[in-house]
Amino acid sequence: MPLPDDDIASWVGLSLIPVLGDESYRKLLRALGEPKEIYAASYASLSGVVGKDVAESIRRGINPDSLAPLYAWLSHEHNHIVTLADTEYPQTLLQIPDPPPLLYVKGRLDLLNLPAMAVVGSRNATPQGQMNAESFSRNLSDSGLCVVSGMALGIDAAAHRGGLDGMSSSIAVVGTGLDIVYPSRNHALAHELAQHGTLVSEFPLGTTAMAHNFPRRNRIICGLSLGCLVIEAAIRSGSLITARLAVEQGREVFAIPGSIHSPVSKGCHALIKQGAKLVECANDILDELKWLPSKIPVAADEASPPDGNRHPLLDALGFDPVGIDGLTARSGLTSDTVCAMLLELELEGRIACLPGGLYQLIT
Amino acid sequence: MPLPDDDIASWVGLSLIPVLGDESYRKLLRALGEPKEIYAASYASLSGVVGKDVAESIRRGINPDSLAPLYAWLSHEHNHIVTLADTEYPQTLLQIPDPPPLLYVKGRLDLLNLPAMAVVGSRNATPQGQMNAESFSRNLSDSGLCVVSGMALGIDAAAHRGGLDGMSSSIAVVGTGLDIVYPSRNHALAHELAQHGTLVSEFPLGTTAMAHNFPRRNRIICGLSLGCLVIEAAIRSGSLITARLAVEQGREVFAIPGSIHSPVSKGCHALIKQGAKLVECANDILDELKWLPSKIPVAADEASPPDGNRHPLLDALGFDPVGIDGLTARSGLTSDTVCAMLLELELEGRIACLPGGLYQLIT
Repeated sequence: MPLPDDDIASWVGLSLIPVLGDESYRKLLRALGEPKEIYAASYASLSGVVGKDVAESIRRGINPDSLAPLYAWLSHEHNHIVTLADTEYPQTLLQIPDPPPLLYVKGRLDLLNLPAMAVVGSRNATPQGQMNAESFSRNLSDSGLCVVSGMALGIDAAAHRGGLDGMSSSIAVVGTGLDIVYPSRNHALAHELAQHGTLVSEFPLGTTAMAHNFPRRNRIICGLSLGCLVIEAAIRSGSLITARLAVEQGREVFAIPGSIHSPVSKGCHALIKQGAKLVECANDILDELKWLPSKIPVAADEASPPDGNRHPLLDALGFDPVGIDGLTARSGLTSDTVCAMLLELELEGRIACLPGGLYQLIT
Repeated sequence: MPLPDDDIASWVGLSLIPVLGDESYRKLLRALGEPKEIYAASYASLSGVVGKDVAESIRRGINPDSLAPLYAWLSHEHNHIVTLADTEYPQTLLQIPDPPPLLYVKGRLDLLNLPAMAVVGSRNATPQGQMNAESFSRNLSDSGLCVVSGMALGIDAAAHRGGLDGMSSSIAVVGTGLDIVYPSRNHALAHELAQHGTLVSEFPLGTTAMAHNFPRRNRIICGLSLGCLVIEAAIRSGSLITARLAVEQGREVFAIPGSIHSPVSKGCHALIKQGAKLVECANDILDELKWLPSKIPVAADEASPPDGNRHPLLDALGFDPVGIDGLTARSGLTSDTVCAMLLELELEGRIACLPGGLYQLIT
């Protein structure tokens, strides 16, 4: 079989050798230079660095047929291979102990070296959790931090939407080949990321969703980032793995608290107990990072609604149910006035009417 | 006017001199001995320790009429005066910089020297916050910690109820004279505390509710306690004053997290950011104190409902609203089954039905 005829083919060729792991790949690079030189090396040189199987496999060269899908994929705009030798390779990944030798990238290459923040959380997120993910991410993005997540359902998807909405866009690090969209329900999001953000994978084209690839992928999510924000997470969850990897990589971990009775807040609470920073708004993160926002959005802080146009009854309402008697007592208004205002607020969608004549704020 | 004819009269007599503050009171005790001896001291001795006004006031003795209400009050069972010289005086208060020279006590004297935990929070608590206050307090009480609070509405009242329910009862430290129940809505609770727990005040009989006495009273709440648990609190609130005093007294501060959108969780979040321990159940507190519970209740942990009889739909419901479509998707059940189960759960009071066909868990 012929030797690979260009740089990309040799970088990818080595990565497709099943018995060659990333660590041995990096060992070869250190010992023998770039992949083209590795392919040109003698069996003796190769077997001095890696095992017999790998040396023989490299000496056999690359089957051009195996690269046909790669070249077809690379012929589309937005699709790129970025290797350790490229200036586009994310510099933050060079700080982690196990940077992938190459990345498949679909979308904007410039995002790979923007300051970034990982925003992750549960697939079984609550609606409020998803709203929090989106608004925190939009504010982080508007402040100059690209939002990195894993394109899972729930929090991840909401984080990408928020990041894309803001000034600094979003990067999805996925656990499959970039020619596969997983989960399929995120098809529209993947398309938008390819157009306006970036998708990144270390896995070869055609790699389907396999459970063991996802925790591995998580090290890249936090590796690309200055810190890792966990929005909602159960006690045993991938998000906590990402948070642990972030700590190991020396990244700051942030977590949003919630009800002690909500299962998807328990992971966040566990992180805070272990030293993660409790955050209530994006500015809490920026403050901790001593980050000077490139642009402070004029939009209201996501944690506290503006008080200017405060409805006289809204102060009396809480996040737990209250009846008209309670509202009359709290607000000092007559019950007629309270009833009229409640109807108005309900029509505006600002409060929820519960059974038993109870009312509750909607954020 | 005659000199006071017993120890209690002289302790109380000095405390009723308006121009004599607690610090000067303690200075007199250190210089001249017990109050009876202070009353017997010469003007020269007295004015060598305190100001002219105070010395003259002491030399005038006590008007017996001014003590008549005290003796009437002391004639009732449950009512006591406990002074710095008594073995019943709470030993933990001796560690704080400004222990009151005497305490008015209504109820069980033995509680004053039990290990205790302060449980405080907002008067405008949410129903869930009050349930948390009650269940944490009951568990702490069952574990051998007497629950100390301020008998305000909301969290305080719920904490006392939980403490009284448990094995180690509860102490209310109030900001009025003990012959006055404030707020009047807590009359039944005050009665129960007098019967089965304890009420404590440093203020003379007849002292009405005055704003400046409440923060002062808070130092005794945490002074009596190993630590201070804040259940729900707004950003500027008396509970945060109590927490600050607790830190100054070297006590541990604990706080329960909640929604970042709930105003009465903001105080707790601020405390956690400043170093308070985030807690999700009473055991978190006992662990931190390295406390060996005198009795571990067999009741379920207040933070997680038992899973044994878990309804198949309850896992699919969250603490934020969800519709029937979402529930069908999450549970894998048919929409007919989901509707039937929702009705059943609503009738059992386990879920709330919101406008727009949305449903939500009730804890």
